[in-house]
Amino acid sequence: MPSAITSRKTQEKPREIMDAAEDYAKERYGVSSMIQSQEKPDRVLVRVSDLTVQKADEVVWVRARVHTSRAKGKQCFLVLRQQQFNVQALVAVGDHASKQMVKFAANINKESIIDVEGVVRKVNQKIGSCTQQDVELHVQKIYVISLAEPRLPLQLDDAIRPEVEGEEEGRATVNQDTRLDNRVIDLRTSTSQAVFRLQSGICHLFRETLINKGFVEIQTPKIISAASEGGANVFTVSYFKNNAYLAQSPQLYKQMCICADFEKVFCIGPVFRAEDSNTHRHLTEFVGLDIEMAFNYHYHEVVEEIADTLVQIFKGLQERFQTEIQTVNKQFPCEPFKFLEPTLRLEYCEALAMLREAGIEMGDEEDLSTPNEKLLGRLVKEKYDTDFYILDKYPLAVRPFYTMPDPRNPKQSNSYDMFMRGEEILSGAQRIHDPQLLTDRALHHGIDLEKIKAYIDSFRFGAPPHAGGGIGNIPLR
Amino acid sequence: MPSAITSRKTQEKPREIMDAAEDYAKERYGVSSMIQSQEKPDRVLVRVSDLTVQKADEVVWVRARVHTSRAKGKQCFLVLRQQQFNVQALVAVGDHASKQMVKFAANINKESIIDVEGVVRKVNQKIGSCTQQDVELHVQKIYVISLAEPRLPLQLDDAIRPEVEGEEEGRATVNQDTRLDNRVIDLRTSTSQAVFRLQSGICHLFRETLINKGFVEIQTPKIISAASEGGANVFTVSYFKNNAYLAQSPQLYKQMCICADFEKVFCIGPVFRAEDSNTHRHLTEFVGLDIEMAFNYHYHEVVEEIADTLVQIFKGLQERFQTEIQTVNKQFPCEPFKFLEPTLRLEYCEALAMLREAGIEMGDEEDLSTPNEKLLGRLVKEKYDTDFYILDKYPLAVRPFYTMPDPRNPKQSNSYDMFMRGEEILSGAQRIHDPQLLTDRALHHGIDLEKIKAYIDSFRFGAPPHAGGGIGNIPLR
Repeated sequence: MPSAITSRKTQEKPREIMDAAEDYAKERYGVSSMIQSQEKPDRVLVRVSDLTVQKADEVVWVRARVHTSRAKGKQCFLVLRQQQFNVQALVAVGDHASKQMVKFAANINKESIIDVEGVVRKVNQKIGSCTQQDVELHVQKIYVISLAEPRLPLQLDDAIRPEVEGEEEGRATVNQDTRLDNRVIDLRTSTSQAVFRLQSGICHLFRETLINKGFVEIQTPKIISAASEGGANVFTVSYFKNNAYLAQSPQLYKQMCICADFEKVFCIGPVFRAEDSNTHRHLTEFVGLDIEMAFNYHYHEVVEEIADTLVQIFKGLQERFQTEIQTVNKQFPCEPFKFLEPTLRLEYCEALAMLREAGIEMGDEEDLSTPNEKLLGRLVKEKYDTDFYILDKYPLAVRPFYTMPDPRNPKQSNSYDMFMRGEEILSGAQRIHDPQLLTDRALHHGIDLEKIKAYIDSFRFGAPPHAGGGIGNIPLR
Repeated sequence: MPSAITSRKTQEKPREIMDAAEDYAKERYGVSSMIQSQEKPDRVLVRVSDLTVQKADEVVWVRARVHTSRAKGKQCFLVLRQQQFNVQALVAVGDHASKQMVKFAANINKESIIDVEGVVRKVNQKIGSCTQQDVELHVQKIYVISLAEPRLPLQLDDAIRPEVEGEEEGRATVNQDTRLDNRVIDLRTSTSQAVFRLQSGICHLFRETLINKGFVEIQTPKIISAASEGGANVFTVSYFKNNAYLAQSPQLYKQMCICADFEKVFCIGPVFRAEDSNTHRHLTEFVGLDIEMAFNYHYHEVVEEIADTLVQIFKGLQERFQTEIQTVNKQFPCEPFKFLEPTLRLEYCEALAMLREAGIEMGDEEDLSTPNEKLLGRLVKEKYDTDFYILDKYPLAVRPFYTMPDPRNPKQSNSYDMFMRGEEILSGAQRIHDPQLLTDRALHHGIDLEKIKAYIDSFRFGAPPHAGGGIGNIPLR
């Protein structure tokens, strides 16, 4: 029995079809009225991913997008897509479908959302172009739930084609501007669906690991009263009759939480940097994953916790998100990610020696340039067979003012970066927890003490030694 | 054997003590040098919360803050605090401690962080003022790790005293300005420690529940190019040579993710409102918890998912955070929170009837004022014995432009708020997923279509019916 919601709107069919005589299937297709929660039909919608041979010969309802359609005589083949899954559907003239109904189905614009009732049929030959390869859906009813406009600004199949393959075969790919101008459609591709699930998974694994380690999640302020980490690269906000600023990192706040006895804190949130450069390392807004932790005697206690957290993320992704990783790999092929346990930790002077041996000229207190970072990544991969490592003991001169100097060597510091495939992904350090030393270092860096008074004062009433790091957090230098 | 880290700094003791002859305990106390990760001693620090009779007669090392100290003849009693736990420690002249050592201990400023070696001793009479009531620590060594300044701007014991009790007994409490000016100390109280853990727990339970339900976590942009939800209450940012704005909610972005096939999304992040009012309902920056979800036929599918998510948070807090709830209750007494399963859902017209019966005069299309919200909360509690309920079917006139009208009654809408103890904590609705109706409603609200073009366009290529809600998200009207 067709429910009210599906039968109501036959009057919305194109006039030509309405005019055609004796359409014996006229109740079986059409454009549904806009769903305004008019009713609660007692109907189960089956997921496309659940359409397998286990459901063979069952009658099911499915809601999906029209990914492609192809009319062929008295038949119309549709590919129905639901997120990263798709299935072939067939509308063929017969008991359930009239000629008019096949024509209606063939004319539904791609990306429209439809409700379909059909019988799941096992197929003899695997359907290579669909994720559901062993079945197809023999359509008995078809209603448009939300009609797409006829001309799509980009084709989803083009958007997931690897660049190289497109070039070689003269087939279309989609350039970045078109993607960004039509982001809602670009995000429907299997690759984008996988990337967003991986991003969600990374945040989840990060939090899950840290909460299991006893960390407390905090939320730090984004609108702040002073450009607390130096005036450069800070966005100004009109704040009623005054100016305020957007926080360039949660650095000061997470440290203040350590002084407030939370011992182990983390946060995930937006970070704002007024950097007017067009590189993938310089974004005006990005999501930072931050950790801060009191330690007992040595900052390596913290380095180990952070490295283990990253390893748990790597493992969790490999265990729980294999489908998504493979989906992304189809469009962006790359070698499997390698890491060691325990994580490789090199000292900065060792890295310098490796680079010098490879012909690079660098001073002892010089920072790594992006090309040298990448070269070092390759050298480390060759020597140690890992895509992930820690570089420890950076020169003090290239680190922020709150970095703890190395007591053995005043030109070094208790600071570290972590690298994936030759790019820095995390920067961290033991922080200075003594207000006098912190004041001295801030003055040395030419920082206005008045602007960081609350920060420095937070160390005056007993502060534990602590260290931390930020992911996606390029250090302010 | 004292390790290097503890024995090094006897020269830092006050001169008077150094001058005293024959201090047989002089290696057993002092101010440690700043921990700069000089070494990795092989020492286990025991948590204060683990100091129980099971450890009786063991020698342990503990790092904690000096919460209070009280010298009494040849003895000094310290209360050592670690987060929300504390234990009594005793330094008494004897084999391990000299007169000078007891004096040293008695003179350590409150809130200083110390390392203590001591024997755990069972006590005959419970120590009512400490969380560890059955043991005390007999101190053998004591070293200051981080010295607090002598004058504390507020006393922790004052800061956790219930206002009423303070007033009645003429004892000190701490006013809000002092708390905010010394936030790092105020956050050390057992109440603040509990509140922050509850906040962290709420976010964790929210995410855990939604990820189990198949939701994807998203991050939405905060710096945006146009004041997309109406020009009022928006902060302007200087963005290089142009102006940009701070997002007033993730509303448009989470809906666009639904149009991009994510089906179920959530996000937790900062929300910015330029509201120049001093109420606890009008903050310029707060953390919003947002949900958006495609549904099949009726927005109540989404209402049920959201209500269940809140119920899972209530239950999770009661199960996993009982200690924290009780801690907060000591300072802020309140009745246990009551809720029903399934959640009570009232229609707006029913609420109007209840209010009118209680003598309130209100028009059918009038919004609830804050006093009426609170009164309604009391009436619902009396009648249904619940602190949590849903109010459904708000007048269309008081809701944002993207709210789906009720097809049965054009003055009503498919929208809802959720209430806890008589205050709105969530606002949500079925959203308009049809670009033409959305355009009409935006024009009706006087919204500049050019500013929301990308948003409206996102519904042009097939959009599923969807609904959602925001917690901590007062609707923009």
